[in-house]
Amino acid sequence: MLEDISRRLCLVREKQPIVHHITNWVTINECANVVKAFGASPVMAHAKQEVEEMTGIASALALNIGTLTEELIEAMILAATVANKKGIPVILDVCGAGTTSMRDIKIWELLNSCIINVLKGNISEIARVCGENVKTKGVDASNITRDPREMAKWLALNKKCISVITGEKDILSDGKRVLEISNGHEIMSRVVGTGCMATSVIAAFCAIRETDYLSASAAALVCYEVAAEKAARKCAGPGTFMPELFDQISILKESDIKKMGKISEC
Amino acid sequence: MLEDISRRLCLVREKQPIVHHITNWVTINECANVVKAFGASPVMAHAKQEVEEMTGIASALALNIGTLTEELIEAMILAATVANKKGIPVILDVCGAGTTSMRDIKIWELLNSCIINVLKGNISEIARVCGENVKTKGVDASNITRDPREMAKWLALNKKCISVITGEKDILSDGKRVLEISNGHEIMSRVVGTGCMATSVIAAFCAIRETDYLSASAAALVCYEVAAEKAARKCAGPGTFMPELFDQISILKESDIKKMGKISEC
Amino acid sequence: MLEDISRRLCLVREKQPIVHHITNWVTINECANVVKAFGASPVMAHAKQEVEEMTGIASALALNIGTLTEELIEAMILAATVANKKGIPVILDVCGAGTTSMRDIKIWELLNSCIINVLKGNISEIARVCGENVKTKGVDASNITRDPREMAKWLALNKKCISVITGEKDILSDGKRVLEISNGHEIMSRVVGTGCMATSVIAAFCAIRETDYLSASAAALVCYEVAAEKAARKCAGPGTFMPELFDQISILKESDIKKMGKISEC
Repeated sequence: MLEDISRRLCLVREKQPIVHHITNWVTINECANVVKAFGASPVMAHAKQEVEEMTGIASALALNIGTLTEELIEAMILAATVANKKGIPVILDVCGAGTTSMRDIKIWELLNSCIINVLKGNISEIARVCGENVKTKGVDASNITRDPREMAKWLALNKKCISVITGEKDILSDGKRVLEISNGHEIMSRVVGTGCMATSVIAAFCAIRETDYLSASAAALVCYEVAAEKAARKCAGPGTFMPELFDQISILKESDIKKMGKISEC
Repeated sequence: MLEDISRRLCLVREKQPIVHHITNWVTINECANVVKAFGASPVMAHAKQEVEEMTGIASALALNIGTLTEELIEAMILAATVANKKGIPVILDVCGAGTTSMRDIKIWELLNSCIINVLKGNISEIARVCGENVKTKGVDASNITRDPREMAKWLALNKKCISVITGEKDILSDGKRVLEISNGHEIMSRVVGTGCMATSVIAAFCAIRETDYLSASAAALVCYEVAAEKAARKCAGPGTFMPELFDQISILKESDIKKMGKISEC
Repeated sequence: MLEDISRRLCLVREKQPIVHHITNWVTINECANVVKAFGASPVMAHAKQEVEEMTGIASALALNIGTLTEELIEAMILAATVANKKGIPVILDVCGAGTTSMRDIKIWELLNSCIINVLKGNISEIARVCGENVKTKGVDASNITRDPREMAKWLALNKKCISVITGEKDILSDGKRVLEISNGHEIMSRVVGTGCMATSVIAAFCAIRETDYLSASAAALVCYEVAAEKAARKCAGPGTFMPELFDQISILKESDIKKMGKISEC
């Protein structure tokens, strides 16, 4: 599995796929930079008049509802429809699911209007999308009792997507297989945007024109989180972590993946 | 006074209150990160359809008119109304007051539509809110002759709020008492966003459910500015200052406050 | 030529001109910070109700269509009209020209509605503005055969502006003279926003109230890129490059320009 991850990392760097983002205003810069650090090509555009054309030149579409508005969701549906027709992957970060009913409604609208190939969130956000009656505390925590592996599987089957639950351990599923990743570092939870950036990285790895999005998503998270572990060792706190993370991503080596990658099938 | 400041710092870290922001697009990331570095929980949301619900789960509301639009102000009023009913503090940064008549008008609209618990600006912004005929030079400087302590007191009495004037010396007042803080560092004025971040930190400290917002605001500024002094010593310029600041905030100790805190009653 | 560049750097620091930006959401913070690092005064404002007044207090107007919308373009035209009347320079970054037809149309709208004093883009963006049938790959690359010096000259003559093509070598023209700058560093292309920031720096240098915008733009790029070279030497990768860049800009010396500046007339 680790060899396939390295191969995908090389492909991202080689093909430099364009990833079209319609994302939130808080972490839009970090999302663009993380895609660039991996050697891919970010483009951010949200005007309804141009999103279809922009998705038309892209190899993946990354959506994030972190600071959603009516207009932004309309733009997302337009762009995703083009992506679906074209056969390029659509990755959705259900950022803040469970905090307001608008988010719930708009997530359903997105899921009903177009195919989402990868649906990603933290445990409370995913629980909410699975219909649990959670109340997300801001965009961070909550108390879920249901087994995350079960939820990931159920969501993948039900929404015909790859489900990705990020956290101390990441859980990914295509409805049949369930993968678990134990990379990453506690410091990531003390910086704004590490979740949104994970979505962008998944989009970059799904953009290399191979349709096994489960493996692509898993490869993305392993690479991103191994780099984060290396950055965490070198930095002095959450502020210096972020610049260090971009540095580590840009010099990430196959041997790092081999040595540090922690992925297993449940 | 310094012991009470340390106590409040601990409470922010312990309670991790949610701070709902409706803020500007320039420093939205830094505002979220500074709240997180202090151990609290930032959430940014501005759609009219969800701001009321989002404020409903928060413990403080931080407003900043730095890149205001009609829609944003409407969202602020909706959110602030909920905050007022719920009894959680509303902190307003009158960023750029005096630069355009739209800002003047919108500040009055906000002040007339809802209770602002803490009103914060630099000397020229506050002078403008006090009715002085200043012309702010961008969002930075101007020439005011009136005594800032008098202005702070007058504003607090007149608008029934805590007034906070940031600068080389910060002046705070509840209309009776006037506090002066001499912490901070010159380098803060050479980086974009340090003022906006101060507002977010005040919001986090006001969010711990004690209603003495004068002490909370003062505590916020002392902690933030002591961390800034420590960061200024370690960094090499305005660029490396910012990551260092987040690091220093996250490791700020009670002993730092004790040793370096400079606050007095006028 | 290098002495004149140093003189202009000093003038920016001395006069601290206000640069009004209507720019994109991805790099808005970096654009503000780069202007500040050079000692000038950034202000970002985009509401139609206030842009005219804001441009009224500014010494230059920087426009960037990176994340354009209908409303943003309307605001740009309002602001540029005031700038034109007032006689202050308008700098336009045609970010992403060639990616969508909306961008093409809006660029023409801008060029037809108001005077653009400096028009800046990378080679593929400028080629597109020159009517070439390029398809920009995201906002980064493409294959152009036409001589960039010819294009720069043609564009300057045709649109009555200073044309600036950034890249490994920057080409600038006023329609008669053509300047070439060989400063900068490869790492700049691996970080999001270095192009947008260049536009902001050009605006700051054009803001010092001398109307030779060709020299001002060239001076801006030499200073910015010499600082970037120094930052590239000190940093460990694209992440640590950015904070280092702001540090280096703030301590840039006349002797650095003298020693490292590489500018010539073609």
